[in-house]
Amino acid sequence: MKAFVFHGPGQSAWEEVSDPAIKEPTDAVVRVAAVTICGTDLHILRGDVPEVPPGTVLGHEAVGEIVEIGSDVRSVRPGDRVLVSCIISCGRCRFCREQRYGQCRGGGGWILGHLIDGTQAEYVRVPHADLSVHPLPGTLADRDAVLLADIFPTAYEVGVLNGRVRPGDTVAVVGAGPVGLAAVATARLFSPERIIAVDLVPARLEAARRFGADAVADVHEAPAQLVADLTDGLGADVVIEAVGVPESFELCTRMVRPGGRVAGVGVHGRPVTLHLEDLWSKDVTLTTGLVDTHSTPALLRMAAAGRLPTAQLVTHTFPLSRMEEAYDVFGRAGESAALKVVLGGKQHEVAVAAA
Amino acid sequence: MKAFVFHGPGQSAWEEVSDPAIKEPTDAVVRVAAVTICGTDLHILRGDVPEVPPGTVLGHEAVGEIVEIGSDVRSVRPGDRVLVSCIISCGRCRFCREQRYGQCRGGGGWILGHLIDGTQAEYVRVPHADLSVHPLPGTLADRDAVLLADIFPTAYEVGVLNGRVRPGDTVAVVGAGPVGLAAVATARLFSPERIIAVDLVPARLEAARRFGADAVADVHEAPAQLVADLTDGLGADVVIEAVGVPESFELCTRMVRPGGRVAGVGVHGRPVTLHLEDLWSKDVTLTTGLVDTHSTPALLRMAAAGRLPTAQLVTHTFPLSRMEEAYDVFGRAGESAALKVVLGGKQHEVAVAAA
Amino acid sequence: MKAFVFHGPGQSAWEEVSDPAIKEPTDAVVRVAAVTICGTDLHILRGDVPEVPPGTVLGHEAVGEIVEIGSDVRSVRPGDRVLVSCIISCGRCRFCREQRYGQCRGGGGWILGHLIDGTQAEYVRVPHADLSVHPLPGTLADRDAVLLADIFPTAYEVGVLNGRVRPGDTVAVVGAGPVGLAAVATARLFSPERIIAVDLVPARLEAARRFGADAVADVHEAPAQLVADLTDGLGADVVIEAVGVPESFELCTRMVRPGGRVAGVGVHGRPVTLHLEDLWSKDVTLTTGLVDTHSTPALLRMAAAGRLPTAQLVTHTFPLSRMEEAYDVFGRAGESAALKVVLGGKQHEVAVAAA
Amino acid sequence: MKAFVFHGPGQSAWEEVSDPAIKEPTDAVVRVAAVTICGTDLHILRGDVPEVPPGTVLGHEAVGEIVEIGSDVRSVRPGDRVLVSCIISCGRCRFCREQRYGQCRGGGGWILGHLIDGTQAEYVRVPHADLSVHPLPGTLADRDAVLLADIFPTAYEVGVLNGRVRPGDTVAVVGAGPVGLAAVATARLFSPERIIAVDLVPARLEAARRFGADAVADVHEAPAQLVADLTDGLGADVVIEAVGVPESFELCTRMVRPGGRVAGVGVHGRPVTLHLEDLWSKDVTLTTGLVDTHSTPALLRMAAAGRLPTAQLVTHTFPLSRMEEAYDVFGRAGESAALKVVLGGKQHEVAVAAA
Repeated sequence: MKAFVFHGPGQSAWEEVSDPAIKEPTDAVVRVAAVTICGTDLHILRGDVPEVPPGTVLGHEAVGEIVEIGSDVRSVRPGDRVLVSCIISCGRCRFCREQRYGQCRGGGGWILGHLIDGTQAEYVRVPHADLSVHPLPGTLADRDAVLLADIFPTAYEVGVLNGRVRPGDTVAVVGAGPVGLAAVATARLFSPERIIAVDLVPARLEAARRFGADAVADVHEAPAQLVADLTDGLGADVVIEAVGVPESFELCTRMVRPGGRVAGVGVHGRPVTLHLEDLWSKDVTLTTGLVDTHSTPALLRMAAAGRLPTAQLVTHTFPLSRMEEAYDVFGRAGESAALKVVLGGKQHEVAVAAA
Repeated sequence: MKAFVFHGPGQSAWEEVSDPAIKEPTDAVVRVAAVTICGTDLHILRGDVPEVPPGTVLGHEAVGEIVEIGSDVRSVRPGDRVLVSCIISCGRCRFCREQRYGQCRGGGGWILGHLIDGTQAEYVRVPHADLSVHPLPGTLADRDAVLLADIFPTAYEVGVLNGRVRPGDTVAVVGAGPVGLAAVATARLFSPERIIAVDLVPARLEAARRFGADAVADVHEAPAQLVADLTDGLGADVVIEAVGVPESFELCTRMVRPGGRVAGVGVHGRPVTLHLEDLWSKDVTLTTGLVDTHSTPALLRMAAAGRLPTAQLVTHTFPLSRMEEAYDVFGRAGESAALKVVLGGKQHEVAVAAA
Repeated sequence: MKAFVFHGPGQSAWEEVSDPAIKEPTDAVVRVAAVTICGTDLHILRGDVPEVPPGTVLGHEAVGEIVEIGSDVRSVRPGDRVLVSCIISCGRCRFCREQRYGQCRGGGGWILGHLIDGTQAEYVRVPHADLSVHPLPGTLADRDAVLLADIFPTAYEVGVLNGRVRPGDTVAVVGAGPVGLAAVATARLFSPERIIAVDLVPARLEAARRFGADAVADVHEAPAQLVADLTDGLGADVVIEAVGVPESFELCTRMVRPGGRVAGVGVHGRPVTLHLEDLWSKDVTLTTGLVDTHSTPALLRMAAAGRLPTAQLVTHTFPLSRMEEAYDVFGRAGESAALKVVLGGKQHEVAVAAA
Repeated sequence: MKAFVFHGPGQSAWEEVSDPAIKEPTDAVVRVAAVTICGTDLHILRGDVPEVPPGTVLGHEAVGEIVEIGSDVRSVRPGDRVLVSCIISCGRCRFCREQRYGQCRGGGGWILGHLIDGTQAEYVRVPHADLSVHPLPGTLADRDAVLLADIFPTAYEVGVLNGRVRPGDTVAVVGAGPVGLAAVATARLFSPERIIAVDLVPARLEAARRFGADAVADVHEAPAQLVADLTDGLGADVVIEAVGVPESFELCTRMVRPGGRVAGVGVHGRPVTLHLEDLWSKDVTLTTGLVDTHSTPALLRMAAAGRLPTAQLVTHTFPLSRMEEAYDVFGRAGESAALKVVLGGKQHEVAVAAA
């Protein structure tokens, strides 16, 4: 089959590799219908994730059809259309029993396109299939569904649920890239009074408005002051950090009200400064987290009912075979204005989605 | 009356001042029977809390008898024996309605011995008395009760409740000073599997064992490794930071397990480094907080039932008139081995409590 | 002034009474701009609430303007436009401290139009005004705001919050009268997958659809089977009982899934049968409750932002002086199709609101 | 092998049956070291549980040694000493993913000694072994451990956790049989202010005191009044129903305070009367539930640390071969004063445990 293979920093290709096969009785093999590219994939290509061995097929998000199952798989069978979750769950370790699948100690967690071959291929082997794929409602299109493999549950669980957004809250989302936009969209499920999005790219702030932000602020225009002005000087009830750099984190801790929550979604590569000299007495809760995908079944129901703006996040689509071009477009998001690119799905022509 | 007055950094005296009187209809005046000295009082004396105006009577913890009430006080009357809480609550602002009395926006919060005259005096005016004093059960001695004014609710609310200690948990408490020892004692209310106390003073580690720590570790002897060894390499479910310096905070974040909680109780004067490059994916919750004293009624019931080792924390007692000596002993805790010193109470002789 | 006075079962009149005055320093007097009539008022008239003394002015919901305050009122001043909550809170008792204002032991709870004179009058005295009235945003019309005095917080707190509605849930609301419709509307704040409304009046089921129900069922057409069919046989995640008769309660307990919640909002006058022989092993949570109105500030923000369909519930409006006619229309809801009738507000003409 | 077989109402025998064998790759076979008899087993013998087919080996609690595992069992291996939980979990269905193992839809739940052969035998086949057996710490004796198969997690999860016992609470436990006593013992893990046990047998009330009840009341001596007297007339924060008859349930609902919780643990065979005419406005939460055994790992740690009075509940021990005699003693608990009888374990002689 063809697959997108990492060959070390800066080296990768869409090339012929051997087909995956069942190795364990709990495995399934999925024919890939649609995949997407994650910011993490770009980090791997740059060499920032050194544990990825050269020769690995990348990708951890897919929609496809089950073509083969191991002898102990019970929940799905060949022919089923499924979502392949970015997180594999053994279902047996203490973390999986508590639905903290992202912390799985039994051979799961984030392993696809990381420690084992991933989804950017014509076929992918999915371990522990019973807990790691989700049957798809027929009404949900591939390019909507594929966004529920990672980005929507990440924004929802690690941002919105960890931040405990409630009706009437003021929510600030710092970072209006794909995951920040998904956080804006899923925060709305709890009917906050207002959502304020912060970014430095005007086009992303416009996108944030389309996803439901009530106010937007350029990061250089005193966003903490805007939040204070809107909240009688108190600050936001919930602040979601969706960038992953120290400056963004510090901004978030200045925007939160006493008694509020800061939910970190960004992937951080460096330490940050935490101003406990200001915060020690402010009753603030900070959370970090890797997605567990425990919310995927509920999000699938919401998406099937048309209540999540999944497709709105897709700016570019390609056939699978044009993977290298898709990486190029996604990697130059500043110029291309790409949010999410989807490969495969029912339409295979290159298209720029209308705003 | 006599009171302990702050006259600027390094200057203070037990001296004659005018008696306090009712100013607002919600005030009460309390004749002080017992007070204690808090580490914060030492910080004020050193000039670290610049908002305290010279001329202020210090102290924010007391037990005493109501001698006068304003026209709108309903819950207590002259003659009642009460605990004066370190936190004043207006009862009307949005924070007080949510029991976040420490964040009161209506003239309360920590103001005694800080923004208004405090309790280290023969009499003290207590604003918003209905919500800020607690009638005392007759069976509870002054020197047990006075520890419920600040240190026990602080350890319990900001450490144990924020950290969500549960039966079967492994709890690490970093810092075995008075508040850390109170955290050990109140963590036991939730029957953790084990409590590990960390400090650098051997006498404090011994005290931690007496308060219920199952294991102790010198901070120089790889406490994070000890915790890892006891928990199959995972780390503690709950870590309580009770020191207030950057090194201690960083240690805490290395000791917590994936999915665990770090509850900050220490008072911090400097920023700390938060290693988000390690923690971003670990599902960790960090909390900060000022005590609200919402738990004081429950703690009073527990103490009256003999279920809190309050008096064990009192190493020295003095009559009120020997306030300056008491400050000296408490200020030299390294030499004097003082944990808490109590002034007043039924016994007025200088005594070193037996271990 | 004029007021609507209860003179014993079946006897009442809009008549001249003496003006209310400040009695306690925590009181306020409010000039009534708009009031509504509650089903409970009809019960009082019928003699079902025997503790109401003849001579009492009825009504526990109002919008108006503060005209006088007692010496200890701090949060509002004459001229302020306020919502008078159906629940009075002393702010000092243990229940008020926990925001269970409905259970107030300090002279509050539901007393207006019940144990003291109420709001169906030109003026009303409101005890404990600091905690019992809410300043109104200028953008919110009287007849929207008055629905936040009782019916919306009741449906939201006792139905939706007690029932812990979550995104993706299936919610069944049994009873599509005013409080049931408000439960449908406020359940939507949590983005359930679907809401199913059950009633026996077709017009009410139509109204439920307008308020956001995704499906409706006549109570005689096997509503439990409909819920089962929509949920793979499991039942609803949350069932809200908004009728108050034994048959309705039993239906609710047949509609709930294992692990689900039944939140009782209906006012019951008789015991019900609880089928523990079926339910003992089903992990079901049942809740009861009187509204606390702790959610009123958040609901006011939501209503001011146009996110609550308050005015949609108002089918009839009258000037205050036509109170007796309004009672007649509301009392014959079967014929008049009345949902809520509002007296006063900016428009004083009799009008039937368009659907 | 020998096993205790149900042959229809009133008919049963310890007799020769064929040995169990692995049927599914997720099965394990366990050699039984110790079992106990549950009240439910007596109900089956009386014919009260009609779904149990004649020919079924009874029993759903055991400690033993793994002798054989299916090809997909990963967590345990032959030779391991394990606890066989009363609840089997498939680990894949929506209920198992939420740790509601008792509601398993994938072939688990309570099936041992109910729908398939159980543990009162020399060997037992355990389906879904990875999630349904728990490795035992070496320090925990058989007859302590076997009480963690059902009775302790039942009392803890369905009584104490569902009732949300907190430090300082007043807890009433109605019914001081084995499960009520385990509820008293596990409620203490949360340090309530006081526990009041209610029963009609003086010996059980004495036992309740030994397990930690602070007060006891004969059911005929106005227990609701006792609770009211101890709580300023309010009632208990938490009431645990551990009998399973309508009278007991009604008593519980009279003993709970406004805002309190009633947690039902008893197995009910008839409907009960719920006095909603009194309770509708009292903010009461009622819960029902079948044990999930999600707490078993934590309870095992607590028991191994000596923090659960497991062995105190064992009044009689027998060798496995004297199963019929053990049933007779347990079935005549009124005369024999039996709490729990254990068969097997290290000591095989008949013994009445000292108090």
